[in-house]
Amino acid sequence: MTPKDTVLSGPGASADQLAVRRHNLSLVLSHLRQSGPRSRARVASETGLNKATVSSLVAELVGRGLVAEGEPERGGVGRPGQSIGLDGRHHVAIGAEINIDYVSVLAMNVQGEVAAERRVALDAAHMGSTPVLSQLATEINELTASLRAGGASPVGLTVAVPGLVESATGTVFEAPNLGWRRTSILDDLGALLHDPTYPVRLDNEANLAALAELAARGADEATDLLLLTGAVGVGGGVVTDGQLLRGGQGFAGEVGHMKVQPDGKRCGCGRHGCWETVVGLNALLARAADPEDPVRNPSLDVVQRLEEVVARATAGDARTIEAITDTGRWLATGAGILVNVFNPEVLVLGGYFAALGPWLAGPLEEELPRQVFAPEAGGCRVELSTLGFSAAVRGGALQALSSLFADPTLVDAAPTSAAAEEGAVS
Amino acid sequence: MTPKDTVLSGPGASADQLAVRRHNLSLVLSHLRQSGPRSRARVASETGLNKATVSSLVAELVGRGLVAEGEPERGGVGRPGQSIGLDGRHHVAIGAEINIDYVSVLAMNVQGEVAAERRVALDAAHMGSTPVLSQLATEINELTASLRAGGASPVGLTVAVPGLVESATGTVFEAPNLGWRRTSILDDLGALLHDPTYPVRLDNEANLAALAELAARGADEATDLLLLTGAVGVGGGVVTDGQLLRGGQGFAGEVGHMKVQPDGKRCGCGRHGCWETVVGLNALLARAADPEDPVRNPSLDVVQRLEEVVARATAGDARTIEAITDTGRWLATGAGILVNVFNPEVLVLGGYFAALGPWLAGPLEEELPRQVFAPEAGGCRVELSTLGFSAAVRGGALQALSSLFADPTLVDAAPTSAAAEEGAVS
Repeated sequence: MTPKDTVLSGPGASADQLAVRRHNLSLVLSHLRQSGPRSRARVASETGLNKATVSSLVAELVGRGLVAEGEPERGGVGRPGQSIGLDGRHHVAIGAEINIDYVSVLAMNVQGEVAAERRVALDAAHMGSTPVLSQLATEINELTASLRAGGASPVGLTVAVPGLVESATGTVFEAPNLGWRRTSILDDLGALLHDPTYPVRLDNEANLAALAELAARGADEATDLLLLTGAVGVGGGVVTDGQLLRGGQGFAGEVGHMKVQPDGKRCGCGRHGCWETVVGLNALLARAADPEDPVRNPSLDVVQRLEEVVARATAGDARTIEAITDTGRWLATGAGILVNVFNPEVLVLGGYFAALGPWLAGPLEEELPRQVFAPEAGGCRVELSTLGFSAAVRGGALQALSSLFADPTLVDAAPTSAAAEEGAVS
Repeated sequence: MTPKDTVLSGPGASADQLAVRRHNLSLVLSHLRQSGPRSRARVASETGLNKATVSSLVAELVGRGLVAEGEPERGGVGRPGQSIGLDGRHHVAIGAEINIDYVSVLAMNVQGEVAAERRVALDAAHMGSTPVLSQLATEINELTASLRAGGASPVGLTVAVPGLVESATGTVFEAPNLGWRRTSILDDLGALLHDPTYPVRLDNEANLAALAELAARGADEATDLLLLTGAVGVGGGVVTDGQLLRGGQGFAGEVGHMKVQPDGKRCGCGRHGCWETVVGLNALLARAADPEDPVRNPSLDVVQRLEEVVARATAGDARTIEAITDTGRWLATGAGILVNVFNPEVLVLGGYFAALGPWLAGPLEEELPRQVFAPEAGGCRVELSTLGFSAAVRGGALQALSSLFADPTLVDAAPTSAAAEEGAVS
């Protein structure tokens, strides 16, 4: 047996060799992402690649502006090697979100640091798609212009939407809380962004938020995670064995329309007894406040309205606390079903559920073992998202970044690659 | 770049070379499984391995009794090559099942053909685990004795149980319809099987049934499949993107105890309103027949009892048909939730749901689009299992076989390997 017997050799060797090169560029870049800056020699011994190959791969990654030289690594035996690490200066991934009462954008560099973030309150549900896309495009264009001025180019954009999306055609299939149905997004957005050269994709906001929660924890902490994001609707993002659960047509995780109350209230989708009719933000606010109360005004920023609800609960307002408690009971009913069928290690409460976490998380964690068939709720713990309303845009940026880490040849040589080679690892 | 740059080379080359050899043995064996008998030359060109390597790998697989020479392959250009294919004669995998009212065993050869099958009615729920395991062991011992007499050795055994299992310790965590809780199975069973040399594993019956349904369809037909198996309890097995969904502790797919009716009937698990209280077999029979009716006698064979229910429905018995219709409505409620969260391409009805398929499947397929948020129920179609009560034992055998296909060195050289080399491919 020789190393030739691997699957990667065989006919079509030159195409295979390019694939091997891409694979190894990705291997080195991902290793630096996971393990931090280190010498070429250490990368070689940790990845099993030979030293000459690692040097050649690193040179290419430096040329593409993805990796930079840093401080010499000391402490080992022999001559200290120059440390190399991810270079955050030249490329950024963009996440954007359209939600019921805001649009937001975020830029993340190759090192996973947030380079910029913006959020604008608007009443998207009553505006129609054209002005919403126009506002979103303005935010993205201003963001990318300021990033470019600082020397960083966008490598990809992922747009999060609260509804079913068909990624292949860039279409929002069904987003009842936005009032959008079979709405093509990406063509119009592409024109408003002046036909960007980077890839633009569409995804479900809870899916992207789940990716962000997974990344925030790290693979050692959880590989099976369920994210529930409370807004006007309720989104679910499911990670099983480290991978996003998508289903046959990409519609998996549609938790807001589980029927939890046969013959219950009519939902925005036209059905009765959907989970979001009892745990959605509007259901909570309808119990907690009268119609003319400002906390129920969708044209005001949702974060400010939630701060007001939290202030009332903190002050011991009986109606508010009763409304939250009622929400918590129904949250446990649906969460019990989901923990039974997914058996996650962590259930993360996001969106407004996180804002009301002090009143929701404890009772939910206490109630879950009673709702779930497996002993001790199958080991599921309840955690609050610390990402706030940034989870989906972070996940969008992470998704755009993951394409780059899978294939570092997606970006060309950085215009300032000479500078990159002498720059420090930040 | 040379082929040395692949991940499989590097330090520890000799351990790596063994891993490469095992990988390639698996590749060739799996290719023959998927694509059928063919010449060594064709295997080489289709896998990308070189011809000399393929010859060496095939010789080893023949020696281990997994592959045999067959008819020369004609029709190509040049000298016809001798065809090679899977050899079903020397190794069999065993699936076994403990269920509420029967135990069963099945042997499957390397070609995926059922070599033998047995099922015995017994009232497992009222016997306690010791006599049930004893009966199961008798069936397995008789089966393996007759297989060994025919020249075939068992390569592995997987035991299916209707409940939560902890595979690592061989423990039934919770199987309320059996009355078993934290019941260690594998040690006792091992002793009753006279300490077998092949690996013995425990798994959930619906998980294994889902594997069997996936295999029965083939990867081209579905990679996202939901199996619902109706018995006294209701089991769920979920395949997403071709892989069994297991969850953090292996408890995923626990669909029988989803709360579909808040304040509903008390379940065997102690909770209220679980799905199996409205769609389990006993719920149906309680609606369809009086307590003294033989169809409700658990010591009679469940297949015969179901035949009687089918006969009554066929004859137009109003009470029977009303009971099935009511079951169908509740089936749609729970299935709607599951299709929302998993977005499967196929929902397979197994167990007693399949036996009553003519009255359940049509209404369910009609009702799903009304219950599911995605348009046209996310493209989910409803199919009846054709595997009957054999699905879990087939899945158990398939799981034991998959270990062998992943690592063909698990079996030693076949005692009759000389015969294998001259035998025909069946």
